[in-house]
Amino acid sequence: MIKNVLMTIEYDGTGFSGWQIQPESRTVQGEVQKALKKICGHDIKADGASRTDAGVHALGQRASFKGDFGIPVERIAGVMNRLLPGDIKIKGAKEMPLNFHARFDAKGKKYIYRIMNCAEKNVFKRNFYYYYDKPLDVNRMRAAASYLVGTHDFSSFMAMGSTPQKTTVRTIYSYEVEKKAGSGNEREFELTVKGDGFLYNMVRIMTGTIIDAGRGAIEPEEVREIILAGDRSRAGRTAPAQGLYLAEVYYDTEYLEGKRL
Amino acid sequence: MIKNVLMTIEYDGTGFSGWQIQPESRTVQGEVQKALKKICGHDIKADGASRTDAGVHALGQRASFKGDFGIPVERIAGVMNRLLPGDIKIKGAKEMPLNFHARFDAKGKKYIYRIMNCAEKNVFKRNFYYYYDKPLDVNRMRAAASYLVGTHDFSSFMAMGSTPQKTTVRTIYSYEVEKKAGSGNEREFELTVKGDGFLYNMVRIMTGTIIDAGRGAIEPEEVREIILAGDRSRAGRTAPAQGLYLAEVYYDTEYLEGKRL
Repeated sequence: MIKNVLMTIEYDGTGFSGWQIQPESRTVQGEVQKALKKICGHDIKADGASRTDAGVHALGQRASFKGDFGIPVERIAGVMNRLLPGDIKIKGAKEMPLNFHARFDAKGKKYIYRIMNCAEKNVFKRNFYYYYDKPLDVNRMRAAASYLVGTHDFSSFMAMGSTPQKTTVRTIYSYEVEKKAGSGNEREFELTVKGDGFLYNMVRIMTGTIIDAGRGAIEPEEVREIILAGDRSRAGRTAPAQGLYLAEVYYDTEYLEGKRL
Repeated sequence: MIKNVLMTIEYDGTGFSGWQIQPESRTVQGEVQKALKKICGHDIKADGASRTDAGVHALGQRASFKGDFGIPVERIAGVMNRLLPGDIKIKGAKEMPLNFHARFDAKGKKYIYRIMNCAEKNVFKRNFYYYYDKPLDVNRMRAAASYLVGTHDFSSFMAMGSTPQKTTVRTIYSYEVEKKAGSGNEREFELTVKGDGFLYNMVRIMTGTIIDAGRGAIEPEEVREIILAGDRSRAGRTAPAQGLYLAEVYYDTEYLEGKRL
């Protein structure tokens, strides 16, 4: 009997050319599907909620797949983890209605962006933070982030050359900027954004723009004008991939119990 | 004019086949010598204090090299760091007397071994800890470690098939076992050992033996007999490379000011 299964997936994006399967490249989807094939005996497509880029990490990526397999759904995570390489971990798996789809049914996502504000790179953390060495003002960053919250046309924050979208209007529910004390001279900034959806590279471009406010290159209130301009060249640079984490994917109340696997 | 320079080096050992240069393999020595060649214009040999194995990390490896180069010694670290890949960092460089040698003049070393005592592997930390999921008793581990302190014949703790040594007697000055609370269910153990020298795989075999005491497979006081037996098969397993960090290398008072670069 065919079942539809939703998995929660954690991965270290360093060694992957992103989520989406590509010939000749090591991808998360490719590795997950290889393991699913071993369990199910035939090719299985795993639909990810987000097509994370090369180097982007996930704490809670979601992917659904349909298959007819001999093991109980509760055992899938354990079996998969024995088959998968060390940089991917299935955190949970849950049976869903047959018409559920991890991407099309996603109602929102949470991303975290980690900045290490420190002059000296730490070799052990280099793949997990954006190292930025000039002073950053947390209050200016918070003010800049606050202008992004709400429903706006975010075309200034979409990568040039992206696949055209039906609409570039998105809603940001919250944008938090936290400053943490690290060990020694390290100061860590953690930016947490929740929204109903994100355009291509949107989180990284918003991050670059918030950094611009933090370092004093723009005034926080200029973010309002950058949004209104609808012009990618007005926003900040695309912050590097290795600081970005897909933290959570949200589904409708219908699927809400699927939220915490 | 030829100068003799001592560098302090930090590296993430994950992507290296160890310190020692080998044809066709990515090694720390190989990368360091490639950068030195760019600075000096000719082949330079960097002598490391320790030939760390594949996957072993360093917080304070030391290497000395002799060369005739146009830049002041104080600028070597900065220039090297622009030439080196992200998983190696030169933390400092200092001019030494011409007869100084990083390995032959080393009078002692400090190693740290990190164990994550947790059922679930974290994909972001997998290369930086030994994941061990059964309960460990810190007091039993401390007792076992205490029997290793002092001057002993450590042949039970030397890898089989190692290059024969003039003597297998070594002195352990201290062996500390610290239990730390991690995030969530994580419990971290940090084992810190200082000694005048270490046989091949000695720290990893001592770690495996201390874990045996911690999990109850042996009594801590059996460590005394294991030492006296002079038999590798009596000691515990070789703990995996990725938990091991070469933390410091100590030199004579003559070179002591070189200790903190």
